[in-house]
Amino acid sequence: MALHLLTPPHLHHHPPLPRRRATPSAAASLAHPLHLHLQPRLRLTTSRPVPARRAMPPAIRSSLIDPDGGALVDLVAPPARRAALRAEAEALPRLRLAPVDVEWAHVLAEGWASPLRGFMREHQYLQCIHFNSLRLPSGAVVNMSLPIVLAVDDADKDRIGAAPDVALAGPDGDLIAVLRSVEIYPHNKEERIARTWGTTAPGLPYVDEAITSAGNWLIGGDLEVLQPIKYNDGLDHYRLSPQQLRDEFDKRGADAVFAFQLRNPVHNGHALLMNDTRRRLLEMGFKNPILLLHPLGGFTKADDVPLPVRMEQHSKVLEDGVLDPETTVVSIFPSPMHYAGPTEVQWHAKARINAGANFYIVGRDPAGMGHPTEKRDLYNPDHGKKVLSMAPGLEKLNILPFKVAAYDTVAKKMAFFEPSRSQDFLFISGTKMRTFAKTGENPPDGFMCPSGWKVLVDYYNSLQTEEAAATAAAPATV
Amino acid sequence: MALHLLTPPHLHHHPPLPRRRATPSAAASLAHPLHLHLQPRLRLTTSRPVPARRAMPPAIRSSLIDPDGGALVDLVAPPARRAALRAEAEALPRLRLAPVDVEWAHVLAEGWASPLRGFMREHQYLQCIHFNSLRLPSGAVVNMSLPIVLAVDDADKDRIGAAPDVALAGPDGDLIAVLRSVEIYPHNKEERIARTWGTTAPGLPYVDEAITSAGNWLIGGDLEVLQPIKYNDGLDHYRLSPQQLRDEFDKRGADAVFAFQLRNPVHNGHALLMNDTRRRLLEMGFKNPILLLHPLGGFTKADDVPLPVRMEQHSKVLEDGVLDPETTVVSIFPSPMHYAGPTEVQWHAKARINAGANFYIVGRDPAGMGHPTEKRDLYNPDHGKKVLSMAPGLEKLNILPFKVAAYDTVAKKMAFFEPSRSQDFLFISGTKMRTFAKTGENPPDGFMCPSGWKVLVDYYNSLQTEEAAATAAAPATV
Repeated sequence: MALHLLTPPHLHHHPPLPRRRATPSAAASLAHPLHLHLQPRLRLTTSRPVPARRAMPPAIRSSLIDPDGGALVDLVAPPARRAALRAEAEALPRLRLAPVDVEWAHVLAEGWASPLRGFMREHQYLQCIHFNSLRLPSGAVVNMSLPIVLAVDDADKDRIGAAPDVALAGPDGDLIAVLRSVEIYPHNKEERIARTWGTTAPGLPYVDEAITSAGNWLIGGDLEVLQPIKYNDGLDHYRLSPQQLRDEFDKRGADAVFAFQLRNPVHNGHALLMNDTRRRLLEMGFKNPILLLHPLGGFTKADDVPLPVRMEQHSKVLEDGVLDPETTVVSIFPSPMHYAGPTEVQWHAKARINAGANFYIVGRDPAGMGHPTEKRDLYNPDHGKKVLSMAPGLEKLNILPFKVAAYDTVAKKMAFFEPSRSQDFLFISGTKMRTFAKTGENPPDGFMCPSGWKVLVDYYNSLQTEEAAATAAAPATV
Repeated sequence: MALHLLTPPHLHHHPPLPRRRATPSAAASLAHPLHLHLQPRLRLTTSRPVPARRAMPPAIRSSLIDPDGGALVDLVAPPARRAALRAEAEALPRLRLAPVDVEWAHVLAEGWASPLRGFMREHQYLQCIHFNSLRLPSGAVVNMSLPIVLAVDDADKDRIGAAPDVALAGPDGDLIAVLRSVEIYPHNKEERIARTWGTTAPGLPYVDEAITSAGNWLIGGDLEVLQPIKYNDGLDHYRLSPQQLRDEFDKRGADAVFAFQLRNPVHNGHALLMNDTRRRLLEMGFKNPILLLHPLGGFTKADDVPLPVRMEQHSKVLEDGVLDPETTVVSIFPSPMHYAGPTEVQWHAKARINAGANFYIVGRDPAGMGHPTEKRDLYNPDHGKKVLSMAPGLEKLNILPFKVAAYDTVAKKMAFFEPSRSQDFLFISGTKMRTFAKTGENPPDGFMCPSGWKVLVDYYNSLQTEEAAATAAAPATV
């Protein structure tokens, strides 16, 4: 859990780019990203009609920012078609997906990866790993930094043979989708890992979870999903699709949406940042900026706080009024986590464009972690926001870098760090916070709202109880 | 030495793109690169005036294709300025360059990497390793796939301190250039290697030569070179700058220039391919296509044939009339070799755009090699041409993929492979060719012109003589 927060000292602005045409000022913003100030309301001018697509109801979209490719992808079969599709799928060669694969199917199905319409084919995969972007038939370039791919092994490949379509089943065997006009190509794991993470060191969580033991082939194709993907974990109501989020922003009359990606509990430093961002947007002339508090809900590494605990903690933060429910939408981002730093932060930002966010808050070392085998950060902590500000296809998103916040021991609250009185500030690391929670020690007053803190304490208590029980139950080893 | 040659069965064409504007057909070529045919003379329409720049004489450029960024970079100080520049350099903190660094200074000085004006600053380096391209102030995107960087160690960094400018000296201590407004940033070698090569396996030749023992910092800045860089190896007359090549193409009245990058001797399979390409260009309506036979002259791995031997072999090939001197320009490309496959082939193509080539021949596994620790090719042999056809900033270049050539034992000559009579064809690997040359055995008639073959035999004989002498002279070890 990072306590190094940043707030926008210079709101970095990429001016809106007419599609397929960059302006001189856009390039100037790249050369000197920190010397430009946000022009209010510049993003409110996109009023081009969206081309009609199957299964996309007309006119239910936020006007803040166009989805990548111009129209939100929706790969869930309409209800009238589902029975026939299921019958068809029953007869196809079947692939069993791992949980992470299902999360990616979910991501694809709802259009978070628009304009991608299925697991990547090789020409998409190659552009992704080499250029972090895709060139569309229109000539437009969209960002695409993480490979969204499905691995199959030799036996699967043989079984599929020359079949054009395959059925995809979940870990429990239930049919989920059909993948059409499939293309099978080599899965060079070493190259994929090196180009995605910038290291091949052992111990990368996503690699261990989803790549090392995966097959040596990738299968791409067009996805058609049998029905909306649900997890039945009591949190599905939080899982709004990009379309549902756009609807919600429209309903609330948002004239700016600023997204905050997180995979950790919200403390008062985060809240300070989010509230300060809203204040600044209001100062710029926006009338109704809405916060998208958007915790990542897919695969996370073992020592991250689990999603249900985080969601409970987030709801306490809103109940306590630390964040204003009137101007905040809390929703789950269904993507798995790669911990791929500057490469992954582009994905996090790009997906939020598709959900209607036109401002993206980026902190120190986004999607970063410690190097798995060396005593250092895996990524230079500044690279995330730098790479994000230069990334192809993200020019239309306003990037909001933020400055460091810490615990102000004089004011007894989280505050933006002031170098002139650095001795007054206390940096509470994630490790330190977890130690507090585990040992039952209270963090300093004003660090986190008490009800939110209690959620964490209860979680770590339950963990310790479980561990103790497991130890007690374990047979003695000789 | 690769004997798997390809010739353009379907000449892949990227239609000319008005700058900052892609056409639908460009994207179509991306989706189905092999199903499009070249339209003759489409690339002869770039007649925009070039903005005037210091040290660029007016109107001495080929009209075939614009250099990246619109004007060719020339970083060599004009003669009148050299004395003052040298005096200034004498007083600056000084960095001693390795031979490979000098080769890069040469590359930069002559504008092969246009619009780059010096060793990369961090914002350029990050775009290079993440996106293989640079966005310019104009909004245009140019390709830039290899980091052109200068490493310094901690002691150098301390010595430079806050000095804005540093002097660069060659391995022998002679002053070469001034690097201005320098920027020093961390050199994360692991990340650089992983993102450039897609592997971090030990044994990559360029890594061993230029990265492993290099410093932990990179220094970027604007380069000003004291005088044209020469090697005094008897081959400098072959080292034409991009501007000199453009002049030569203009002088010859070229209406198409097709570049052939190589780092190996030319055998008759290569020649067949090059002559066949010319024939096809003529068929398309070009009146005077000129071949740029462009051997790489910088760092190569130990078992590649050395540059002087290759140049002698190439000149025999032209003397023998295997290639037509009237329509061929032989010149040395001064870049070092990375052996970075799909990443490097983009650099090879981009640099030739700057030299005026509007057609680029790409073979199987360009810039590839065996995996340093596994028994396989490091790269998928098809990825080079696929990645090249998708690469940002290379849309204006016509990519010519080629099909396999081999020794036809019936016709007793190199010919394009015909699968219907595969038993008639003999594939002579680079290893096999070297074995022939070492043992004095003759290759099949028609494999290579006899005078060119003799150059290789003499080279390998001299190697064996040297080795024998070294063995005889070595003291007996206990």
